[in-house]
Amino acid sequence: MTRTAFFISDGTGITAESLGRSLLAQFENVEIRMLTKPYIDTVEKAENLVEVINGVAVRDGEMPIIIDTIVDSNIRQIISDAEGFNIDIFSTFLEPLEQELKTHSSYTVGRTHSIGKDEVYMDRIHSVHFALDNDDGARTHQYDKADVILIGVSRCGKTPTSLYLALQFGIRAANYPLTEDDLDEDGTLKLPKALAPHHHKLFGLTIDPRRLAAIRHERRPNSRYSSMDQCVQEVGQAEGLYRQMHIPFIDTTRFSVEEISTRMIAEMGLMRRFSPR
Amino acid sequence: MTRTAFFISDGTGITAESLGRSLLAQFENVEIRMLTKPYIDTVEKAENLVEVINGVAVRDGEMPIIIDTIVDSNIRQIISDAEGFNIDIFSTFLEPLEQELKTHSSYTVGRTHSIGKDEVYMDRIHSVHFALDNDDGARTHQYDKADVILIGVSRCGKTPTSLYLALQFGIRAANYPLTEDDLDEDGTLKLPKALAPHHHKLFGLTIDPRRLAAIRHERRPNSRYSSMDQCVQEVGQAEGLYRQMHIPFIDTTRFSVEEISTRMIAEMGLMRRFSPR
Repeated sequence: MTRTAFFISDGTGITAESLGRSLLAQFENVEIRMLTKPYIDTVEKAENLVEVINGVAVRDGEMPIIIDTIVDSNIRQIISDAEGFNIDIFSTFLEPLEQELKTHSSYTVGRTHSIGKDEVYMDRIHSVHFALDNDDGARTHQYDKADVILIGVSRCGKTPTSLYLALQFGIRAANYPLTEDDLDEDGTLKLPKALAPHHHKLFGLTIDPRRLAAIRHERRPNSRYSSMDQCVQEVGQAEGLYRQMHIPFIDTTRFSVEEISTRMIAEMGLMRRFSPR
Repeated sequence: MTRTAFFISDGTGITAESLGRSLLAQFENVEIRMLTKPYIDTVEKAENLVEVINGVAVRDGEMPIIIDTIVDSNIRQIISDAEGFNIDIFSTFLEPLEQELKTHSSYTVGRTHSIGKDEVYMDRIHSVHFALDNDDGARTHQYDKADVILIGVSRCGKTPTSLYLALQFGIRAANYPLTEDDLDEDGTLKLPKALAPHHHKLFGLTIDPRRLAAIRHERRPNSRYSSMDQCVQEVGQAEGLYRQMHIPFIDTTRFSVEEISTRMIAEMGLMRRFSPR
């Protein structure tokens, strides 16, 4: 038996969906089809959506679950009349918050997004271009302006992490690849010269060698670069360097980009220039 | 009078924070200091945090607002003993959901993040590298593999949007700059040749010429490129092309990257390869 869940919002739907997924992930033995419906910001769109929901209720033979973060009370009222099991974030929490804060709330559509958008926009542009300009060791003379410098072997996840930090938090992340160019005569990895003055900004990434080999294999099949031996060796050398130099590091095999980024922010005490919306 | 709000999670804190900011944005006449506390996943961390919260309660002379998405009931219990006004997402909604779904929920920490992580990881890597390889018209021979091709004048927001689509949704977005190279003799912009076979994948970005001039000015101060005249002219030509060729477009001055991306997905019916967490 499959149930359907609707995540409904008058904005992007990101909050409704992330909350809805968190809640429904607790019911792993129920198969739930999840649909996100953003920008339900007019009576007409709401009425059309109610028809869709009611159709699904008939087809499923079960009431769809509705999780919404709609601010406008008229639109919320229309949605609440649908054949669904309603989890309504704003009506649940706004009233108790009004009492606690001893004030009325402003029911403005999409309020969150209108605050300081210009600054966020410029910070984003700057941070994204900083990450791109300083990707893969392309430049090293801007490291004094970096908030953090990610290091690790080729294809361990440095670029996606740098870009996520830039887009979501406005953090300026450079990244630098650890390669055989910096091997000592005895086969241990040295800290590359360009990084030495910025030791306190370094954060290491590591990865399961099997996954690394799989990723590299898609790029250069059957090469030394993608061989299991090579991957095991490079990862071992990188982790050795992190331990020897006391560089904090994280395993990208075990964590998502969101987790890596937020753990890094917590551990290094990085300042976010803005907040995720 | 300033109040303090804590967004507390045993995971990244992204859901708690985005929900908390949405709710508190409705109270624009109250000054609220917002603090996100991710990875509160042990009894010890929870107890330390309770001391911090209680300290803030004394200092503010008002109870802090606590918005949490902690799954583990022991840890949630500790937090709920703090001197705060508690908005507890899971205890509020899980029980009614259990009744509606006629099953018990699994109180697993960070459940959301463990589902299909490998596939998300690979899709992300691929999409991010697709966006980078196909940034700014660098390549055009992979457009058959693109889900969408963003077009617009230089610095109107194509790159951040392409990267956001890749990181958050696994959508493969190429982008191509509209430049004077494609001006007709009469000064109207033609559709660049490389784009013609992919008309249905095109999505235009436009921007307020004043903001464009400001952004370009930071890159090349006092140049023709950043002059108001040039920006007005280029934006006008780009919008003319969108209208003439019936290419959907959006103004990046008015919307955040999240809004542009989610509106584009809705309008073009793009398939997301995974969901934001």
